[in-house]
Amino acid sequence: MLSKKIKEALAGSSAIRAMFVEGKELAEKVGAENVFDYSLGNPATPVPDSFNSTVKELLDKEDSLVLHGYMSNSGYEDVRAAIADNLNRRFGTNFSLKNIVMTVGAAGGMNVIFKTVLDPGEEVIVFAPFFGEYRNYVANFDGVLIPVAPDYNTFQPDLDAFEKAVNEKTKAVIINTPNNPTGVVYSHATMKSIGEILLKKEKEFGKEIYLISDEPYRELVYGDVKENFLTKYYHNTLVGYSFSKSLSLPGERIGYIVVPDEVTEAEEMLSGLEVANRTLGFVNAPSLMQKAVAHLVEEKTNLTFYDKNRKVLYEGLKSLGFTCIKPEGAFYLWVKSPVEKEEEFVRTAKKYNLILVKGSAFGCGGYVRLAYCIAHEKVVRSLDAFAKLAEEYGLKGKGE
Amino acid sequence: MLSKKIKEALAGSSAIRAMFVEGKELAEKVGAENVFDYSLGNPATPVPDSFNSTVKELLDKEDSLVLHGYMSNSGYEDVRAAIADNLNRRFGTNFSLKNIVMTVGAAGGMNVIFKTVLDPGEEVIVFAPFFGEYRNYVANFDGVLIPVAPDYNTFQPDLDAFEKAVNEKTKAVIINTPNNPTGVVYSHATMKSIGEILLKKEKEFGKEIYLISDEPYRELVYGDVKENFLTKYYHNTLVGYSFSKSLSLPGERIGYIVVPDEVTEAEEMLSGLEVANRTLGFVNAPSLMQKAVAHLVEEKTNLTFYDKNRKVLYEGLKSLGFTCIKPEGAFYLWVKSPVEKEEEFVRTAKKYNLILVKGSAFGCGGYVRLAYCIAHEKVVRSLDAFAKLAEEYGLKGKGE
Repeated sequence: MLSKKIKEALAGSSAIRAMFVEGKELAEKVGAENVFDYSLGNPATPVPDSFNSTVKELLDKEDSLVLHGYMSNSGYEDVRAAIADNLNRRFGTNFSLKNIVMTVGAAGGMNVIFKTVLDPGEEVIVFAPFFGEYRNYVANFDGVLIPVAPDYNTFQPDLDAFEKAVNEKTKAVIINTPNNPTGVVYSHATMKSIGEILLKKEKEFGKEIYLISDEPYRELVYGDVKENFLTKYYHNTLVGYSFSKSLSLPGERIGYIVVPDEVTEAEEMLSGLEVANRTLGFVNAPSLMQKAVAHLVEEKTNLTFYDKNRKVLYEGLKSLGFTCIKPEGAFYLWVKSPVEKEEEFVRTAKKYNLILVKGSAFGCGGYVRLAYCIAHEKVVRSLDAFAKLAEEYGLKGKGE
Repeated sequence: MLSKKIKEALAGSSAIRAMFVEGKELAEKVGAENVFDYSLGNPATPVPDSFNSTVKELLDKEDSLVLHGYMSNSGYEDVRAAIADNLNRRFGTNFSLKNIVMTVGAAGGMNVIFKTVLDPGEEVIVFAPFFGEYRNYVANFDGVLIPVAPDYNTFQPDLDAFEKAVNEKTKAVIINTPNNPTGVVYSHATMKSIGEILLKKEKEFGKEIYLISDEPYRELVYGDVKENFLTKYYHNTLVGYSFSKSLSLPGERIGYIVVPDEVTEAEEMLSGLEVANRTLGFVNAPSLMQKAVAHLVEEKTNLTFYDKNRKVLYEGLKSLGFTCIKPEGAFYLWVKSPVEKEEEFVRTAKKYNLILVKGSAFGCGGYVRLAYCIAHEKVVRSLDAFAKLAEEYGLKGKGE
């Protein structure tokens, strides 16, 4: 009755969502205040203070036929110009409105990009661990997702493995930094090497290979780490962005694609993206939210909120004896499972009301992901539960 | 460089959009006030009076983490319940929230439905003339669109031709009433026959065939014609709806799908639609607009605005000697071209600053579409231009 692809998608349904449901069920049993739900990457900071006044002013001042009407499938020109200007100020780029396509979130943007560039059977390389939805986005257009294992010390990409994976069928490479699920930020050296390898391979195979940078966490970087913009390392880079995390608007589905002039036949690419936006049924990014983000593009989310959680959780788990990858961005902590099968570790953690997500959901077994976008006091209280979990696995903390 | 499908889509790009651009260019030459642009089906009535106050109240009273946050991929439960209640009151149905899936407009909804039910090579029947985007929506999932010619007297579907077109490969049938581009409303007799034929064919071929009712114009009916809700004629009916026209929110991309309990394995279907909504990259319908339409679901657009245009244009063109199909719904008038090749008629009309869209864009040559969602005074003034056009083609008006 249902299509084959949807049957498959139903069978392999989201492990994150499944853990979220388990957390909800647990909360009904033991009380929500006693469940430490690290499953969902849902922003926990409110919208910026100026959000409501901005939207109200738009409602009062703009003609409703314009504010809620059709526009170009790529979005309002003034909105695209405001985003281009903002990027230019921050990153020294030289974009104009024509380099920007407004999209229904980054998920919409990624699908629009794949629709535009992928033919059936072409390969898309992704660095493990990776956001599991990429599997679906690539499968939508009959592409083949090729995961490349990481350097397990740093969780930067393994560049030798990457170079070997690129072949004449490779059409695109997905990068996602700051990374979901590891919280790792790719270094300049990593990015430079990726760009060099791709340029070499483009020449070798005489064809375009696109670097698709999925950047919903771009602004969520901590400590000395600076925001980075990734079009400078390689000419055929397409950026997908979302305001879900930077303005705490995940439900509003608002984002954009950047196509630099350096992209091969950039104008044709932009026409393709515009048509894909329309024909996939997005039509255009939601209109009121387009206008709102154009006004709020200089706003920042409350990074301190996440940073406090990051420090307490990372230091806390390390001192309990867990092996953690130091997170420098996003709001995720990537922890090595004390046992090979991390599903068992996830089950054991649940006994202590800790809701984690198995690494195999991200194409990387033996690890778990913690989304620390929850109330700080919960993070603090959860350390007692982690202590019991560490004890159960016989981990030796510092000073013990 | 671009995918084959996108290259094809670019080549056959929207004729409506092309005429809209021609209209804009003409406006720059002769002044916007002198161009009678009947190209775009863009609502011309403002949002209901209570729209702004509703949105402002939501912003003031709701927690921003909920109002702009993730929810189930099918939408907020309270929103879905409000829509089910509204349909039950109006149409005597018996829906609950679980029968409703919120979507990114009707275009998003149609793609979600096709993703859920279509396997490559399966056929989707559509009644000509039809909204040209259906071609893309079906092609997205490698389905084959099979147009069935109309009864040219009434522009109701030709039911004999329809019955012959249904075969073992048929997976779905699209209906769109009130119809774009004709303005025709399918009669009860038509709907009853379509339901009977489909039931017979389901039995004959031993498989499900879905009737997909695309209903963005549901509330736009005039005179004695009543709003109709189409799940009562056939058990496997899926409804796609949009608030674009009923609340004048086309840019906001907000709509829903209805899956009645009578649909075969309705629960599995609903799970499939939810997953398709997520994996296609819609994720969920825009959250603030979901909440807004739930509050505004009893509001109506200003039908009188369109009805005045409808009467003046239909009567005016008829008395000039044009052959017009009487429009009973939507905001379109379907006019027979005085010459076989309607492209020539469209070109000639442009000489008189009349912007029309060729019928072949809707799979039905020899006719043109007029979208009369423009200012009334323009409709009135355009009659002089139509008079000159009629004269050029030697049409004989009434009383001449």
